[in-house]
Amino acid sequence: MATSENNLSPHEPWKAFHVREQRSLDIKWDAVLQTAARLFLELGYRKTSMSLLAARLNITKPALYYYFRNKEEILVECYRAGIDSIEGALKDASSCEGNGLEKVRSYVHSYATAIVTYDFGRCVATLDDSELSDQARRQVRNLKRRIDAAIRGYIDEGIQDGSVAPCNAKMASFAMAGAINWIGTWYRPGGGLGPEEIVSEFTRLLISGLQPGPKAPRRTRPNQADNRSRTRRARK
Amino acid sequence: MATSENNLSPHEPWKAFHVREQRSLDIKWDAVLQTAARLFLELGYRKTSMSLLAARLNITKPALYYYFRNKEEILVECYRAGIDSIEGALKDASSCEGNGLEKVRSYVHSYATAIVTYDFGRCVATLDDSELSDQARRQVRNLKRRIDAAIRGYIDEGIQDGSVAPCNAKMASFAMAGAINWIGTWYRPGGGLGPEEIVSEFTRLLISGLQPGPKAPRRTRPNQADNRSRTRRARK
Repeated sequence: MATSENNLSPHEPWKAFHVREQRSLDIKWDAVLQTAARLFLELGYRKTSMSLLAARLNITKPALYYYFRNKEEILVECYRAGIDSIEGALKDASSCEGNGLEKVRSYVHSYATAIVTYDFGRCVATLDDSELSDQARRQVRNLKRRIDAAIRGYIDEGIQDGSVAPCNAKMASFAMAGAINWIGTWYRPGGGLGPEEIVSEFTRLLISGLQPGPKAPRRTRPNQADNRSRTRRARK
Repeated sequence: MATSENNLSPHEPWKAFHVREQRSLDIKWDAVLQTAARLFLELGYRKTSMSLLAARLNITKPALYYYFRNKEEILVECYRAGIDSIEGALKDASSCEGNGLEKVRSYVHSYATAIVTYDFGRCVATLDDSELSDQARRQVRNLKRRIDAAIRGYIDEGIQDGSVAPCNAKMASFAMAGAINWIGTWYRPGGGLGPEEIVSEFTRLLISGLQPGPKAPRRTRPNQADNRSRTRRARK
């Protein structure tokens, strides 16, 4: 997609004119998308109008409509760019040669990094997809489901190889996704907590809840007696 | 607030007429609020119109406007009822006589219960407060901040008394709030996962990440070497 094509060198005279033309169009298209993502995160999707976006970009509304037919198309592309970055986190995890827990750790680390460093990642995490048309929403939810299935697979792999304590992989993946996505609702770039600090602390906290050992008993329904015995351990 | 007044016995002849009248008004007010919350969760706030709400309640639009001046007022009241239920979780935690970790566990358990059993709880967790007017949003955010401060206080108490491993209490409380609030985005009453199963598994997972012990090393920046040593432990 266009956002990944900005890596081209600024001077490529051997490129045919139509390719350079295309790239220049892509750069402008990216600028529109990035400014829109920032506005969606600042003001919410509804309060970001095409007029406001054009004004922020310092272009006319007809110029804006040259790149995108409407605001929903921009939102879908923001989701797509965000999901691309989260799928990058999945690739990091699947190329990790360790056990299931190491794959989950790699995924959590890369996913949290995508959320704190990338506006599009925060768009996926925090914007309400009920604003989309039925067709666009189905598309976005399919992409999200693919991500959910992959992380659940790593947890299952960890349960099989013994690196993850037996748990409900579906709920564990929801808990991790929730904790990480929620970062998008409170994190402000340049605020009190730095991106590296957040990523490292979240990775530690979330992975700690999955590891086997005396602290993570096999799946039993917690009851008063169980709570008391855990507390005694904690007091030691 | 009105939602708590439904606990009155249905026969209280000693109540003055105006009190019975008020209670009947409250019961209808509650019915409007509960139906609205369900619709907001099903369709999203924007797609729930006053006409649709009146139709679902089988009343006229003027009858609906007798109870609420507009849709935003209904949303604010849904938030208020949800925050009341989450504050109930805080009361459970503060009346818990155990150490800091036990208070956090009590809070997580009651909070997750409020989210899976109570539509208003899910409204607080999932509806976008940027839909609100500035004044209403300030009100809602103040209420949310009060909740955040309390849970952070329990974590700090646990760090002080040794029941919680040293961690950044602010991030730990955000991670827990995120994991629990996210339940509201995927949980469907009557779906594959039951409320008790969800509450028990989430409590176990989230508390496990806070407990001290060899699995939760003191705050260090995770690096490759650290990852490898944790993996060796996990394999044992």
